[in-house]
Amino acid sequence: MDTFGTLFRVHIFGESHGECVGAVLDGVPPGLALNVEDFLPDLARRNPANLAGTTPRKESDIPHIKTGVFRGFTTGAPLTVLFYNRDVDSSKYEYLRATPRPGSADLTAKQKYCGFNDYRGGGHFSGRLTVSLVAAGVVAKKIVPEIRFCSEVVSAGGSKDVEKEVLRALEEGDSIGGVVECRAKGVPVGLGEPFFNSVESVISHILFSIPAVKAVEFGEGIKGAASRGSEFNDPIVSVKGAKATNNSGGIEGGISDGSDIHLKVYIKPPASIAKEQRTINLDTGKCVDVSVKGRHDACIALRAPVVVEASVAVALADLYLVKKAYERE
Amino acid sequence: MDTFGTLFRVHIFGESHGECVGAVLDGVPPGLALNVEDFLPDLARRNPANLAGTTPRKESDIPHIKTGVFRGFTTGAPLTVLFYNRDVDSSKYEYLRATPRPGSADLTAKQKYCGFNDYRGGGHFSGRLTVSLVAAGVVAKKIVPEIRFCSEVVSAGGSKDVEKEVLRALEEGDSIGGVVECRAKGVPVGLGEPFFNSVESVISHILFSIPAVKAVEFGEGIKGAASRGSEFNDPIVSVKGAKATNNSGGIEGGISDGSDIHLKVYIKPPASIAKEQRTINLDTGKCVDVSVKGRHDACIALRAPVVVEASVAVALADLYLVKKAYERE
Amino acid sequence: MDTFGTLFRVHIFGESHGECVGAVLDGVPPGLALNVEDFLPDLARRNPANLAGTTPRKESDIPHIKTGVFRGFTTGAPLTVLFYNRDVDSSKYEYLRATPRPGSADLTAKQKYCGFNDYRGGGHFSGRLTVSLVAAGVVAKKIVPEIRFCSEVVSAGGSKDVEKEVLRALEEGDSIGGVVECRAKGVPVGLGEPFFNSVESVISHILFSIPAVKAVEFGEGIKGAASRGSEFNDPIVSVKGAKATNNSGGIEGGISDGSDIHLKVYIKPPASIAKEQRTINLDTGKCVDVSVKGRHDACIALRAPVVVEASVAVALADLYLVKKAYERE
Amino acid sequence: MDTFGTLFRVHIFGESHGECVGAVLDGVPPGLALNVEDFLPDLARRNPANLAGTTPRKESDIPHIKTGVFRGFTTGAPLTVLFYNRDVDSSKYEYLRATPRPGSADLTAKQKYCGFNDYRGGGHFSGRLTVSLVAAGVVAKKIVPEIRFCSEVVSAGGSKDVEKEVLRALEEGDSIGGVVECRAKGVPVGLGEPFFNSVESVISHILFSIPAVKAVEFGEGIKGAASRGSEFNDPIVSVKGAKATNNSGGIEGGISDGSDIHLKVYIKPPASIAKEQRTINLDTGKCVDVSVKGRHDACIALRAPVVVEASVAVALADLYLVKKAYERE
Repeated sequence: MDTFGTLFRVHIFGESHGECVGAVLDGVPPGLALNVEDFLPDLARRNPANLAGTTPRKESDIPHIKTGVFRGFTTGAPLTVLFYNRDVDSSKYEYLRATPRPGSADLTAKQKYCGFNDYRGGGHFSGRLTVSLVAAGVVAKKIVPEIRFCSEVVSAGGSKDVEKEVLRALEEGDSIGGVVECRAKGVPVGLGEPFFNSVESVISHILFSIPAVKAVEFGEGIKGAASRGSEFNDPIVSVKGAKATNNSGGIEGGISDGSDIHLKVYIKPPASIAKEQRTINLDTGKCVDVSVKGRHDACIALRAPVVVEASVAVALADLYLVKKAYERE
Repeated sequence: MDTFGTLFRVHIFGESHGECVGAVLDGVPPGLALNVEDFLPDLARRNPANLAGTTPRKESDIPHIKTGVFRGFTTGAPLTVLFYNRDVDSSKYEYLRATPRPGSADLTAKQKYCGFNDYRGGGHFSGRLTVSLVAAGVVAKKIVPEIRFCSEVVSAGGSKDVEKEVLRALEEGDSIGGVVECRAKGVPVGLGEPFFNSVESVISHILFSIPAVKAVEFGEGIKGAASRGSEFNDPIVSVKGAKATNNSGGIEGGISDGSDIHLKVYIKPPASIAKEQRTINLDTGKCVDVSVKGRHDACIALRAPVVVEASVAVALADLYLVKKAYERE
Repeated sequence: MDTFGTLFRVHIFGESHGECVGAVLDGVPPGLALNVEDFLPDLARRNPANLAGTTPRKESDIPHIKTGVFRGFTTGAPLTVLFYNRDVDSSKYEYLRATPRPGSADLTAKQKYCGFNDYRGGGHFSGRLTVSLVAAGVVAKKIVPEIRFCSEVVSAGGSKDVEKEVLRALEEGDSIGGVVECRAKGVPVGLGEPFFNSVESVISHILFSIPAVKAVEFGEGIKGAASRGSEFNDPIVSVKGAKATNNSGGIEGGISDGSDIHLKVYIKPPASIAKEQRTINLDTGKCVDVSVKGRHDACIALRAPVVVEASVAVALADLYLVKKAYERE
Repeated sequence: MDTFGTLFRVHIFGESHGECVGAVLDGVPPGLALNVEDFLPDLARRNPANLAGTTPRKESDIPHIKTGVFRGFTTGAPLTVLFYNRDVDSSKYEYLRATPRPGSADLTAKQKYCGFNDYRGGGHFSGRLTVSLVAAGVVAKKIVPEIRFCSEVVSAGGSKDVEKEVLRALEEGDSIGGVVECRAKGVPVGLGEPFFNSVESVISHILFSIPAVKAVEFGEGIKGAASRGSEFNDPIVSVKGAKATNNSGGIEGGISDGSDIHLKVYIKPPASIAKEQRTINLDTGKCVDVSVKGRHDACIALRAPVVVEASVAVALADLYLVKKAYERE
């Protein structure tokens, strides 16, 4: 099910080497000023030019707004945005068809969809789909303009010297994982629900839909599991809930507490590497080594900050609208 | 919204010091043998008697099946199970009313619900509600009998010597966090969806609804963010998808790959400690120190394995039913 | 799936001859004054004493509020209400087990649930479940206090002389259908969505969940299908949308237009009659005649006005909360 | 919310005079043969050439499959289909901007969306959107190939002599309503749920999303409300549930009973007529008469059979997939 959200609902679709990818955004409030240019800065952050460790493929990241915007403003009707695919050469993927890449969805996709999946470039499983998430994030941020986001790669391959690590991996025909941190400032108190729609539940749900994300931590959650309450609990210092520390990452009991929402996303290394990896040939049943030719992202985490941020924005925009429904006049 | 699931749907309700807590389970297949005794082993695991670091409160963990079971079998209609609360003395919480415990939902709950929340013992935010999750897990496991679960506390307070750490924290009037590991064996290939309902998305959604969970990691996700692709990618060794390693935790591209689903849950230390903590008096607006009297769980992680396992079972049962809908005859 | 609603969500459960029926109401705003007495007037309307044509079974229509209310106000947490079943004698249904009543769910229930359904008194399919709907309606009305409802039986057995028709049917050991009209006054403009959540879609969805409802008409919909636009279109007479007539039943383009929402519900005659009806004996495969002994509702439409009204209230309360989420400050 | 369905989910979008309308279909099983030609017969039925009483606008009813189909088969990923708008002249709608047409969504749309709605040609409220429903129906029918549909206009303007009535209305510059009947044969036993997802609930939900539908009747529901049980109840004549009559329209207790699902949809006359109608000028606040120039559908019911049928197919396909999830091996 490619739908996320209760009131602000994001539906994404498309394939890496098909005609396009895109999103339908439902539940967008009417009257938000929105044009193509509004999308470009975040889209550019996802597709950094000349960045070592990212692929040079010139994806056409121009959003085509098809529905839901009229004379520069959202109408309240579903907003459809498409991104056409360009510069795709599917032929080079053919040799991979029988030899699923370790660490990829090649085999699970084939099994789940009985071989009918569009396997070219990862098809619907491709990171290309994150362009739809970024587009959704742009609209989400307009729904919650008081929230400001800041996101960055804080380590790659285990080191804070990200650029150096990426170059080394590239040279070795290898790839590396990374950690992305995201902070949302200005979040109102009271988003989220005690149980199944806790802020952590809703945000993690969408974050784990980003390909390659394998762990999500709120605040100092991992350190907290090794800590004492007297160290970890955040002292409250004002009747509105200001706190002396923010180990909880801005969420207490599943509810936003007014402090920054702060989280970390752990991203695995990309599956496509030049180095030989052991896999199976599905036609012959024999073990083979596969080496993925061409240039690929050595560190997908480099593109991820804006995708993480967009995902958090989508989740918060949805929770914000739900909260509004319960506001007392 | 206290509902989880697409086909197997769990609704939970109740308060710590109200009359009862419970669950309505909707979408339960008819014909599953089910009686009160089936619930007892898992319920006992959640409420370990005489375990240092857990509270001695004798909760009445007897499930009362109110609807949905007829002559020992599920009927296909909604299954309602109640747990009556016993042994509750709310008076001792009154002094906490104006002084929210740091690290708890006391203040966010009050703010979100405009002061109408039942604050006694944490009310609807209480860990008491996890008894409903455990009950849901018992039924979930009957939906996917081929999946076997095993869960345990792997560290507490940063140490593998869990018991010793817990006793030390107790002596100091403090609490400690812990890490729970869960493994699901026998998971069929093909559960989950590429994006918003990836296996990780669905499982993390329910796991983060467990109070005190602050991080969730699939496979070796955290180590993976510091690794190279050549180390992390799991070599495929059979046409059915058997792998030489399982760093991915049994999920590739959001889809179960047939290996064990393997995850870790990072649980923060409980908020209620005897040690004094700085907070605010909401009536006077002055900073005060609060010390939570009585005996409380020093390490809530000790009770968590069966809750984590139940949550994973609920998520997998739901994904399993969805998968069945798409099976080709 | 026994769940209705997007924000105000109603889950119902229970069986006619089981221990209880009830509802969990999720998404109830905090701070609504609510006690047991609030439920009694509407519950009494559903179960009219000494009314010819309704069964004398003294159902225990006392609501037991189990969760979600604290010191007389809703808390914002799920509200659970139970109704215990009394005065049930299941033995008299045993002879019906092999001979499904024509016009009932006896056979489809057995087929759908592979024989595991609780068949006693209709089980989960029973009209007894409408007590849960009425309870949900009581809470819904508190969410939209500005909306006033009025509902009545406008005909039975094709005649406006309802009481006479009912008595005649009773004498003949037969049953009759009826038509219930419901009007909601004071509905704000702008509820509903253009397509799948049109006001008509949402209201009809819940109305058709009431057992025995077989047609739903908004405004003068049936006459409208035989009319001309110049007769049917409602002239607009004020800039706020007041209209000279209300053939549309208060809904234009799926959106409430501020006029009364006006609808009719067509209810079939009850299946249980003393007159012999042809059916099949499932054990022998032979045609037999079945006569349902004892006293049964001769005209279930007599109990329906408050159930219809409650259902409309639930739908409008949900649409109202969704609308609030999009209000511009 | 422009989404319908639990497993087979239809999202529709677009505006009458915008660039396009379309649908994203999520939850489509992989491996269904599907190409552009498959859509054409049903699309042609919606847009009958040279039919008196329908507009001559040459809509471009060519489906553009953008995603979800690969080498002639559905992939299991979301299926996106677009229909570009052609032959639109919005200028002629400008004079209507301040004078909402009686019987239309002109005013409610403006009120709901605070004036930001695309009002040209009805915008997102237009009947043009039903092309998306028809497309969804084509795919739905492939999910349930054993079900055969047949639909027709059974009366218009109150007469069975449909063509004559339509011509008379046209001559008078007026419009007329009509009744569409739909029959689904070969429906498996056991679709639907006892309460909120009864077959009637789910089907009526989508039927009432079709613009101009104001009443829905299952089987002989309206006659049934004036009948006796001994007349209306359908005698059961085989252990599998075959019935001597089908007054229930193939649904007992909300569950399909294996007989034809049979329903009638009551459609109001179109709002746009040449005859003068009383309305308000929103700018001046004065009453005015409005006459809608140009050619418009005199009887929208003529186009409706395939739209009704598609909607029923979408509902049944969704219920069918849910049922499959619960099938016992």
